[in-house]
Amino acid sequence: MPGKPQITAFEWVPPIVQGLVRDVRCRWAFEEVGMDYDVRLLELGENRGEAHRALQPFGQIPTYSDGEIEIFESGAIVLHIARLKPGLLPAEPATEARAIAWIFSALNSVEPLIFDYQLATFFDRAEDYAKLFLPKAIERLRERLGDLGKALGRRPWLVGGQFTAADLVMVSVLRQIKDTDMLAEQQDLSAYVVRGEARPAFRKALADHLKAFEAAKPPAWFTQGEKQ
Amino acid sequence: MPGKPQITAFEWVPPIVQGLVRDVRCRWAFEEVGMDYDVRLLELGENRGEAHRALQPFGQIPTYSDGEIEIFESGAIVLHIARLKPGLLPAEPATEARAIAWIFSALNSVEPLIFDYQLATFFDRAEDYAKLFLPKAIERLRERLGDLGKALGRRPWLVGGQFTAADLVMVSVLRQIKDTDMLAEQQDLSAYVVRGEARPAFRKALADHLKAFEAAKPPAWFTQGEKQ
Repeated sequence: MPGKPQITAFEWVPPIVQGLVRDVRCRWAFEEVGMDYDVRLLELGENRGEAHRALQPFGQIPTYSDGEIEIFESGAIVLHIARLKPGLLPAEPATEARAIAWIFSALNSVEPLIFDYQLATFFDRAEDYAKLFLPKAIERLRERLGDLGKALGRRPWLVGGQFTAADLVMVSVLRQIKDTDMLAEQQDLSAYVVRGEARPAFRKALADHLKAFEAAKPPAWFTQGEKQ
Repeated sequence: MPGKPQITAFEWVPPIVQGLVRDVRCRWAFEEVGMDYDVRLLELGENRGEAHRALQPFGQIPTYSDGEIEIFESGAIVLHIARLKPGLLPAEPATEARAIAWIFSALNSVEPLIFDYQLATFFDRAEDYAKLFLPKAIERLRERLGDLGKALGRRPWLVGGQFTAADLVMVSVLRQIKDTDMLAEQQDLSAYVVRGEARPAFRKALADHLKAFEAAKPPAWFTQGEKQ
């Protein structure tokens, strides 16, 4: 019998990414299906060490372990949780298959374009290419969001009229650009993100994710940086 | 009862992307599990029309339909095929879960970095940012490939000592950078790609994918471009 699942998350991250680290996606899934879980907190940098890499080859969080199943990639973890308990996947096979298709779509056809936008505006913002790249990254992402907005339309959720793991993952992906005009101009999509974030399971997951940071002491490099 | 599955593919694409379009991933999965399938060929551009977008919101190929299940995203299609017949997913739950985690990893943690490399070297090569972006894209991808190479090591396949859907997707992702130094310098990884491509199911899938292009007449814009 598998034991109580444990995921990994960061003990502390800079405020700008608090709320957006991928353990939120797993916490949200646990809350939606009503499963207890433990969190093992890692210091920033500890994820790059050999011990964590034995669990996660790229030094990322989250990982998932229940004593029998040991996996990584938030998409895979959400799908795994969705299969353990009812609540996140439709029972009807054709609708379930569409929900899973949308999970892949969020991660392979939407998130990579958001990653490029984040490169230009955040991770690589000091690089020479960033200013020149930004308009292309925006153009490509805006077109994709337009298509996604049309596909969703006025429906509350992506598949079968009910909230599924597809919405959990897609809303999590879109939350990364929540404060942008690109999302605001797609009214159906921004309402969709608000709808996702209003779910009690999301609010509980986010609160628990943030609670860890309140307790943590920011590292010296960060507090010294702030004083400059 | 679902009918014979049908996927969509392109009638013709420019030589530089022949062999790399994502229908190859689905064809490969069908061949590995020994399932018959039909292909509906679309003209380039037809995929952007309303009729196809009803099946695929972003105007991409492939799509999958068997009269009951209608899905898109090659990752989802491969996973679906892998669930229909034995051969692509380990029977043991913990190993199966790891194989699925690696599918997500290939699509969300490896392919987006390859996409950025392709932006700089191909899709956006005429843009001002491309030359400046390329070193960063290479640096990031090289690090990721290094981690992946270490994770694979000398093992033949990613999970459980057997070829799984994880390898099918990961090899398909890596094939996009087959002719680069980045892959060549990771000897375990390049041997892994060669091993994947040597599988009879892959060779059959690739041959069938290419056969369609031989029969097709390249569009006027392409042949005129060649003459200039």
